[in-house]
Amino acid sequence: MDMYLPDIPKVEVCFSPSQYDLYRNDFDIAVVIDVLRATSAIATALEYGVEKMIPVSTVEEARELQKQGLIAAAERNGEIVDGFDLGNSPIGYMDPGLKGKTVALTTTNGTRAINIAAQHQMVVIGALVNLGVVCDYLVGQGKNVLLLGSGWKNKFNLEDTICAGAIADHLIGTGKFQASEDSTIAAKFIYRSAKENIFSFLKASSHRRRLRKLNLNEDVKYCLTPNTIRTIPVLKGRELVKLETTHVG
Amino acid sequence: MDMYLPDIPKVEVCFSPSQYDLYRNDFDIAVVIDVLRATSAIATALEYGVEKMIPVSTVEEARELQKQGLIAAAERNGEIVDGFDLGNSPIGYMDPGLKGKTVALTTTNGTRAINIAAQHQMVVIGALVNLGVVCDYLVGQGKNVLLLGSGWKNKFNLEDTICAGAIADHLIGTGKFQASEDSTIAAKFIYRSAKENIFSFLKASSHRRRLRKLNLNEDVKYCLTPNTIRTIPVLKGRELVKLETTHVG
Repeated sequence: MDMYLPDIPKVEVCFSPSQYDLYRNDFDIAVVIDVLRATSAIATALEYGVEKMIPVSTVEEARELQKQGLIAAAERNGEIVDGFDLGNSPIGYMDPGLKGKTVALTTTNGTRAINIAAQHQMVVIGALVNLGVVCDYLVGQGKNVLLLGSGWKNKFNLEDTICAGAIADHLIGTGKFQASEDSTIAAKFIYRSAKENIFSFLKASSHRRRLRKLNLNEDVKYCLTPNTIRTIPVLKGRELVKLETTHVG
Repeated sequence: MDMYLPDIPKVEVCFSPSQYDLYRNDFDIAVVIDVLRATSAIATALEYGVEKMIPVSTVEEARELQKQGLIAAAERNGEIVDGFDLGNSPIGYMDPGLKGKTVALTTTNGTRAINIAAQHQMVVIGALVNLGVVCDYLVGQGKNVLLLGSGWKNKFNLEDTICAGAIADHLIGTGKFQASEDSTIAAKFIYRSAKENIFSFLKASSHRRRLRKLNLNEDVKYCLTPNTIRTIPVLKGRELVKLETTHVG
């Protein structure tokens, strides 16, 4: 690209899966972000003992895996799909009954973004709840990082951009990463505007209005509170598993 | 859509032509924005006396119109294309020799955005140089407005977003418009971060770095200075012409 210095890893922000093909070249790691709520739920599930999650793009695939005896979760437009017991509520995954289990999951935006990025990069699951450990891991790796927001039906989404901006700001701030895209600069500014109180900032957001309608405030507050857990989910084959902490740093 | 109140016109921001199909429904007017430099150049050309401009998407179309005897202008990647005398420098269009002329124009991003939007909406040309008059016009019309950034090769672009955010902020501030998209909220925040000194703000931008390389600072400063002219270009058929001021407000 244009303006990169040689030998310094880059970190850039891609706002939504619909823009991914414009950004995807030359990145080693994709951090997929769906703060409300898929990636918050995945990190929480693995933190609380779920062994593996299988992200699938369609409800049909989730149903198929459910028929094969897996626990399956499906969310569309913020609600659990009929015939499933779990959606994308992180709090739903704190259930001790799920310890050691494998869960198949499909969500409106997040699982699709995971499967798109998996075609080209190593996939790491990022959210605000695991922000600090994800940043530490990325700094330790020193590879080219694409921060991929899941967006809302392919559109730009504020909370994913705030999270991406937080990671970009941290990585660039170490002096060990460079950025050149305008989207990355914008994400950093939006994060800095929001960071004192992300929940208040999002009161202005349409997505939060959608969720207020659904009366999910406990979940939203959990998802918007940074650094409550230490799990970094990564995709191995088609399964999301906990990165062994010995790999961190 | 989700969250709009009835009977209040909406104003939303679409960051780039690649996102246009996700946003385009239910808008009456598209304001196409390419601050550096196509829409700044178009508004300036008509302000200084060019009678009409014909935006075309390809260099080949511009060459064809040139063969037919029109003055033609072509820019790709910030430079005038071989065989053309004009590109997208606004200062180049202040030439008194162009008074009363028709100019065919193709640029990397802006003219493509114009032609995409023209399929679905009335097209108005917005830039920082004509910011105030465009805002006044839109308030007077009271119709649904989509602010379409031309972006950079389909990616998000900071200066177009600042200009779109300025218009959105003004329209929403009148209390006569509503917005619901996260992209619009983000554009407003970015505008507010940048507005005290847009040029300084853009020092961090990759696009400005591209232009610094091209040594175009006089042009950039002109394009980034709000409210220096009073022309509102609109597309009539395939021609961009000056909106008659009797239509304003």
